[in-house]
Amino acid sequence: MRLADLPTPCLVLDRQKLMRNIRSMAGILGRHNVPLRPHMKTAKSIDIARLVLAGQPGGITVSTLAEAEYFASHGIVDILYAVGVTPGKLDLVAKLNANGAGITVITDDPLTADAIAVHPAEIKALIEIDCGEQRGGVLVAEDLISELADRLGANLVGVMTHAGHSYQGRSVAEIAQIAELERSHVVYAAQRLRAEGHAISIVSAGSSPTGRHAETMTGLTEFRAGVYMLGDLFQAEIETHARDSIALTVLTSVIGRPSGRLLVDAGALALSKDRGTESTPNDFGFGLVQDIRGEYALGDAIVRKAYQEHGVIELDTANAIETPVGTKLRILPNHACLTAAAHDRYYVIDGSDEVVAVWPRMNGW
Amino acid sequence: MRLADLPTPCLVLDRQKLMRNIRSMAGILGRHNVPLRPHMKTAKSIDIARLVLAGQPGGITVSTLAEAEYFASHGIVDILYAVGVTPGKLDLVAKLNANGAGITVITDDPLTADAIAVHPAEIKALIEIDCGEQRGGVLVAEDLISELADRLGANLVGVMTHAGHSYQGRSVAEIAQIAELERSHVVYAAQRLRAEGHAISIVSAGSSPTGRHAETMTGLTEFRAGVYMLGDLFQAEIETHARDSIALTVLTSVIGRPSGRLLVDAGALALSKDRGTESTPNDFGFGLVQDIRGEYALGDAIVRKAYQEHGVIELDTANAIETPVGTKLRILPNHACLTAAAHDRYYVIDGSDEVVAVWPRMNGW
Repeated sequence: MRLADLPTPCLVLDRQKLMRNIRSMAGILGRHNVPLRPHMKTAKSIDIARLVLAGQPGGITVSTLAEAEYFASHGIVDILYAVGVTPGKLDLVAKLNANGAGITVITDDPLTADAIAVHPAEIKALIEIDCGEQRGGVLVAEDLISELADRLGANLVGVMTHAGHSYQGRSVAEIAQIAELERSHVVYAAQRLRAEGHAISIVSAGSSPTGRHAETMTGLTEFRAGVYMLGDLFQAEIETHARDSIALTVLTSVIGRPSGRLLVDAGALALSKDRGTESTPNDFGFGLVQDIRGEYALGDAIVRKAYQEHGVIELDTANAIETPVGTKLRILPNHACLTAAAHDRYYVIDGSDEVVAVWPRMNGW
Repeated sequence: MRLADLPTPCLVLDRQKLMRNIRSMAGILGRHNVPLRPHMKTAKSIDIARLVLAGQPGGITVSTLAEAEYFASHGIVDILYAVGVTPGKLDLVAKLNANGAGITVITDDPLTADAIAVHPAEIKALIEIDCGEQRGGVLVAEDLISELADRLGANLVGVMTHAGHSYQGRSVAEIAQIAELERSHVVYAAQRLRAEGHAISIVSAGSSPTGRHAETMTGLTEFRAGVYMLGDLFQAEIETHARDSIALTVLTSVIGRPSGRLLVDAGALALSKDRGTESTPNDFGFGLVQDIRGEYALGDAIVRKAYQEHGVIELDTANAIETPVGTKLRILPNHACLTAAAHDRYYVIDGSDEVVAVWPRMNGW
């Protein structure tokens, strides 16, 4: 099977680029001597998890309990569920853990900490620290940190943070500064809790941009990152990786040719409505267009509009290739996590247009 | 099972509102004496299709061949695939039709018309007319209409159009004008082709806003609409229905309570990143917040930010209800088609908080 034979729209995954991205982050973390706990929220694929875990301790990060269940069913049991848990979700965590998983939860909430502590220590918990993103987490100066630790008791094993605000960084220097905030906040929290007598074995931080640009990771016991595996236009724009390292594209067919434009069958569902590059140096609309070979035969053409199943590509005068209805194109996504989530499989290529594998991916909750 | 017992995030469907919306559109079309060919691209559920087809001829509209295959497998065989087909998709259409489906395709492209005409007439085709949206379709004044009809030959059975620009209407009067453009363009195209000797039995138009506000449908043989069944904030803002007729909400749990805000477990995946209400009188961010009973106990609170699995609700001083972590809330979506597409089932309620049914929905391609 070749790319030209695939039904559209569908996800194409370039294994060479995937492996380059995996090796790059593993190399960076290896130099920092910090193990990777890959975040599988983007890839959601056991095949990709196995590749990224080579040479690593074996634990992963997930964003939903459905992911936890999926990966545990495939034998990956050391799982950090890195979205604040609710008391009502603890029964499912306990059940999955009783069946062989080892899911660690996070919290920043006293009543949730109490609910966690009701369970035996097989439900391990980390305190979520806010290192400046102002999403979830406790500020390191708050007394709440100590209160949470006391309430969690024997279930407490560590602290974690996520510098999601690294996505707002617009230079390598700025992202490096945010990486240092991420590191220093969570390390300080760990030191504070240790000084108060708590056993803190896990000091976890991470995001793809800070993983790439951190100057030091001293004090961290693990690092989490996910989107870097596949990459996307937004991450390329903020210099997490090169644009030609984006391993994920949406294969699409031209379905119409109104004047000066192309209609394609990748619309808002196949691409997502994420407009992440609206605020980056280059605004790629709903995605940047390549030909089926992965080359820019249509110049700087982007998907300008996205209806449910129609994408509209604006053409400029430099457009060279013939594009009859049925022509297949590839769209680089703004945001891999959201684009991939509409699809149930990756069609894998590896240096040619031959599809060498089909990897399922899970979605939903 | 009650709403409070459901895992979050998930889709909640209010059957009373669904039925009210279905009856409302059926009543309007009944007064116009035009049958409904419901567009199932929003609901993607055989259970909803059966409800909406009561008293109608039985044909449906779909936006993907995966939908066509799904509905045909459930016995609904008269299917209009209302996105421009490509030559490469015709083999699948022919195969599904040979297995009992009756899929009609649309085109505005001469070479695709030739490819359709290669197939025996069991692949019926409509010529797509552009009534002003400037997405797909032929303009009624173009000679291309006649050329397409000639090329399609015996496969040609009619014409269709979609006034997607009705979504840009910002008053009932404006939408009524667009409805008349939709009707008059496609009726004119039919008359022109009939005058040229073609047998045109299908004159198909439709969108939810124009269905609601058209003053006449004279000359149409069928009307297509879909999103009105579930409704959403965007459609409510452009007066396709009342806000309290939105049948679809995302049930979510509070997962954190930073100062002045709530974090919930419905983020960009569970809600979509559609920002359709950005340009309407009320900007609802990523959705409007209700309590679990469907009331506005949090005032005008909206989901202001949407990360992959985190939604951020901004609170104002009027927020009355207690919201500990674990509190369940419901989010009215901007755009039902995109929000629903992340979910694989509807949890159906009918006048109380009891879940009376679970209806699967299909997704993907």
